[in-house]
Amino acid sequence: MAEMKAVILGISPSANIIDISHDIEKFDVRMAAYALACAAPYFPKGTVHVAVVDPGVGTRRRPLLVQTQSAFYVGPDNGVLALATDNQGIEHIFEITNPKFMLTRISNTFHGRDIFAPVAAHLANGTQPKEFGPETKRISTPKFARVARKRNTLTGEVLHIDGFGNLITNFREEELDSMDIKETVNIKTRNHKLRLKLGKAYEDVKKKEAVALFGSHGFLEVSVNQGNAGTAFEVKRGDKITLSKA
Amino acid sequence: MAEMKAVILGISPSANIIDISHDIEKFDVRMAAYALACAAPYFPKGTVHVAVVDPGVGTRRRPLLVQTQSAFYVGPDNGVLALATDNQGIEHIFEITNPKFMLTRISNTFHGRDIFAPVAAHLANGTQPKEFGPETKRISTPKFARVARKRNTLTGEVLHIDGFGNLITNFREEELDSMDIKETVNIKTRNHKLRLKLGKAYEDVKKKEAVALFGSHGFLEVSVNQGNAGTAFEVKRGDKITLSKA
Amino acid sequence: MAEMKAVILGISPSANIIDISHDIEKFDVRMAAYALACAAPYFPKGTVHVAVVDPGVGTRRRPLLVQTQSAFYVGPDNGVLALATDNQGIEHIFEITNPKFMLTRISNTFHGRDIFAPVAAHLANGTQPKEFGPETKRISTPKFARVARKRNTLTGEVLHIDGFGNLITNFREEELDSMDIKETVNIKTRNHKLRLKLGKAYEDVKKKEAVALFGSHGFLEVSVNQGNAGTAFEVKRGDKITLSKA
Repeated sequence: MAEMKAVILGISPSANIIDISHDIEKFDVRMAAYALACAAPYFPKGTVHVAVVDPGVGTRRRPLLVQTQSAFYVGPDNGVLALATDNQGIEHIFEITNPKFMLTRISNTFHGRDIFAPVAAHLANGTQPKEFGPETKRISTPKFARVARKRNTLTGEVLHIDGFGNLITNFREEELDSMDIKETVNIKTRNHKLRLKLGKAYEDVKKKEAVALFGSHGFLEVSVNQGNAGTAFEVKRGDKITLSKA
Repeated sequence: MAEMKAVILGISPSANIIDISHDIEKFDVRMAAYALACAAPYFPKGTVHVAVVDPGVGTRRRPLLVQTQSAFYVGPDNGVLALATDNQGIEHIFEITNPKFMLTRISNTFHGRDIFAPVAAHLANGTQPKEFGPETKRISTPKFARVARKRNTLTGEVLHIDGFGNLITNFREEELDSMDIKETVNIKTRNHKLRLKLGKAYEDVKKKEAVALFGSHGFLEVSVNQGNAGTAFEVKRGDKITLSKA
Repeated sequence: MAEMKAVILGISPSANIIDISHDIEKFDVRMAAYALACAAPYFPKGTVHVAVVDPGVGTRRRPLLVQTQSAFYVGPDNGVLALATDNQGIEHIFEITNPKFMLTRISNTFHGRDIFAPVAAHLANGTQPKEFGPETKRISTPKFARVARKRNTLTGEVLHIDGFGNLITNFREEELDSMDIKETVNIKTRNHKLRLKLGKAYEDVKKKEAVALFGSHGFLEVSVNQGNAGTAFEVKRGDKITLSKA
């Protein structure tokens, strides 16, 4: 990370660099994508976001630059950008190919330092997105970003369980809207069938009661007011969740 | 934290944001208050400090802005600001109520991001403290910030035991002065009665001997030169300590 | 660390401060020296690097300012600066003695905060290196920075084993050049005798085969393509390694 920041400052000395998280588990693309989606809405318009997740062996992906309505995203096409960019509305995708904006190869290439950091710094300096490579339509959608609609049900998954046991799913408001789900929602987990109020705050239900609401990250959360939904509903990260109109 | 920094930069783009600590345990107000008190004296005059400790369930406190002789402090009235602001001398306390300086509520309110971060950023931009809400005299004093005087004794507690086993108490120099304690001090812990030299440095006593001195944080420390006072005197964080004139 | 940053910003308000690592073990000078050597080449010319490693009891060292062809280094003469400065080519060494650039002693001296941080900030502000104290030739070379040449062999050690099991040694390219080692190298560890290709990338050998190459840090690495050299060759950090012409 220090090497990436060093490269950025060498190109864009007045860049203000903020770490979104130091706590992403190695190889955990879903966790990184979720952390980015949570933080991104609070950054100023035009912010350049850089995301790198160690790709593991043999899984190197195309380097992408994604332009949304509010920001720029630079990272590999492995799904790490999917949640944040989908939430903001993708306007353009460019495949980064122009060697002019890459670090001269010193030894084994580390994309974060040699491609993503210099591209981000040049973007911060005002270089136009199209300068970095050709526009493309192709971007991978990781499994954790997919919601399947089948007749009257939506099937998605648990993106994250936070420190309070709140279940954050990958359903977005427009998906519930498209099913005309309002005020109440049926939620099916592996072991439980719930009929929950679609609220605005945890306090919209009584103590120890469950509620569904959209968090600031834009995803549907299942929470127990002053309780722990994760343990109450025996759900873990990655579990399948099915929704239907109540 | 990234969301708070994002909010700050959105309002005050040239703010230089420094993390005081990433290592505060959840809900540990005393540890956060102590870390803030240790670091604060080294920051430039006029620095805006923001402190947030996860409040746990049902313990939300009034948001405060405290102005001292050297700095501004923004945080909840749960004691996290107590040590740093007492050390510097409180000049004014304001209760933050003006919604103009708060983030528009996106979903469940997180005071750090929605109130403290924007208030800190506006302060950094030069907004006058009184703009944020009415002046108040009320501020909570947490148990760990209290020293009781009873005849010839002062009773306080162990704020922190550092990595070298030094015991940092919550006694300040003026409290010892008020008891006319000089050069030597009697200290009583649960299991030990000590009569210690009041020194200036660990090396003021022989190797493996104990000494009492005021650290740069402004609090009385009990230390063993090249040894571990915590294990030597069987003391743990939060333990009661009694002082008297030797 | 926050106190050091606070001191730096008090003297040089527009300084852009980047953390190289939060993960150095206490007292681990070799690990700190290695982390600094890895990151330093990516920082802009003229960067001021500050390195502090807790010295343990009774091992305080002379405070130094080292000027290389690309940067300034401020830290104790305990070896923490050795790898980075040797890599870049030392031009001048100054012993920091001028109290004008030190923090007024508040209590027990912490060199990082009271000497290294203010010196670094003044350097960033443009103060000439010679202002901080007299030029010197003396600088300690820690054991981990030494390579011994004896007839046809070079003896060094394992500086670091990274998360992928790559062995990073303390041999530099010019040392292999001086032995006319090219294309192939003999490497002897405690339990293994290897004859390895001197490559440019892990992929220069077949899957599960070992290769030697120079990493971006400038040191010879022994790696197993898609494997773990540390476990394959039963080597641990600090182990002696012997090289010879193949």
